[in-house]
Amino acid sequence: MAEPVLRLLRERRQTLAVAESLTGGLLAATIVDVPGASTVFRGGLVVYATDLKRSLAGVPGDLLAERGPVDPDVVLALADGARRVCGADWGVATTGVAGPESQGGLPVGTLYLACRGPHGGEVRGMTLDGDRPRIRAGAVAAALELLAEALGAAG
Amino acid sequence: MAEPVLRLLRERRQTLAVAESLTGGLLAATIVDVPGASTVFRGGLVVYATDLKRSLAGVPGDLLAERGPVDPDVVLALADGARRVCGADWGVATTGVAGPESQGGLPVGTLYLACRGPHGGEVRGMTLDGDRPRIRAGAVAAALELLAEALGAAG
Repeated sequence: MAEPVLRLLRERRQTLAVAESLTGGLLAATIVDVPGASTVFRGGLVVYATDLKRSLAGVPGDLLAERGPVDPDVVLALADGARRVCGADWGVATTGVAGPESQGGLPVGTLYLACRGPHGGEVRGMTLDGDRPRIRAGAVAAALELLAEALGAAG
Repeated sequence: MAEPVLRLLRERRQTLAVAESLTGGLLAATIVDVPGASTVFRGGLVVYATDLKRSLAGVPGDLLAERGPVDPDVVLALADGARRVCGADWGVATTGVAGPESQGGLPVGTLYLACRGPHGGEVRGMTLDGDRPRIRAGAVAAALELLAEALGAAG
């Protein structure tokens, strides 16, 4: 799933980093599944606890306090933080409600994804059906798709 | 696989963080697969590029330069860094050679795992057979086993 994106990044000599909340490492793991990922993938932040979104990824504390962790501006700040903290050309981030409980009034399956590159950023919001593993796998697929589209648009 | 460890941590009101090199997020993802993981799991660092082991997890630069990234002292420093940077009671870390190529003279399947808790740390080295996904899955299982044993010894 990550292979075409990594090939495109390799051709452009650009690098990638991630910041993950609801996917909790699964996006990074999907990327490093591809042999040779180390030429483009730098690493990532698993910011599962809300306060780590601030202390590790640099999401503004007042934004987090006002909106909560599942928010389009928060996920864009996470992508920005991944890119900056890991020193990468592209940052991709995920946040959302994987369940089994709803969170902050948001139903299970609510998610936001962001991609930030050398020339700007993009956010996508969606809701996915299914149980916890299915929602997290769907979020990984959607994040990679968002990155593929952003790479295509920037190509 | 992570469920018994998380239950034990929850009973003790202690928290967990990870720092991952060769497993690249798979250890964190395996932990957050367990519903309710958020009560004990704080987050983690995916320090895939060698320089991130220093800049994100605080592994001393001279240690990395002298020994390379696949080393027992480096993995202990990674576990320490995860614990400190993420503000957790326990830190678990992985480093090794997932393949397909050998690395720094070390054969594919060489790995080191570390666990650092409130009362000290432990390192384990091993070699695993198999392809890249199998080695990474084996490293995750071995890291959780090391944590389970350390929790048992500290209990």
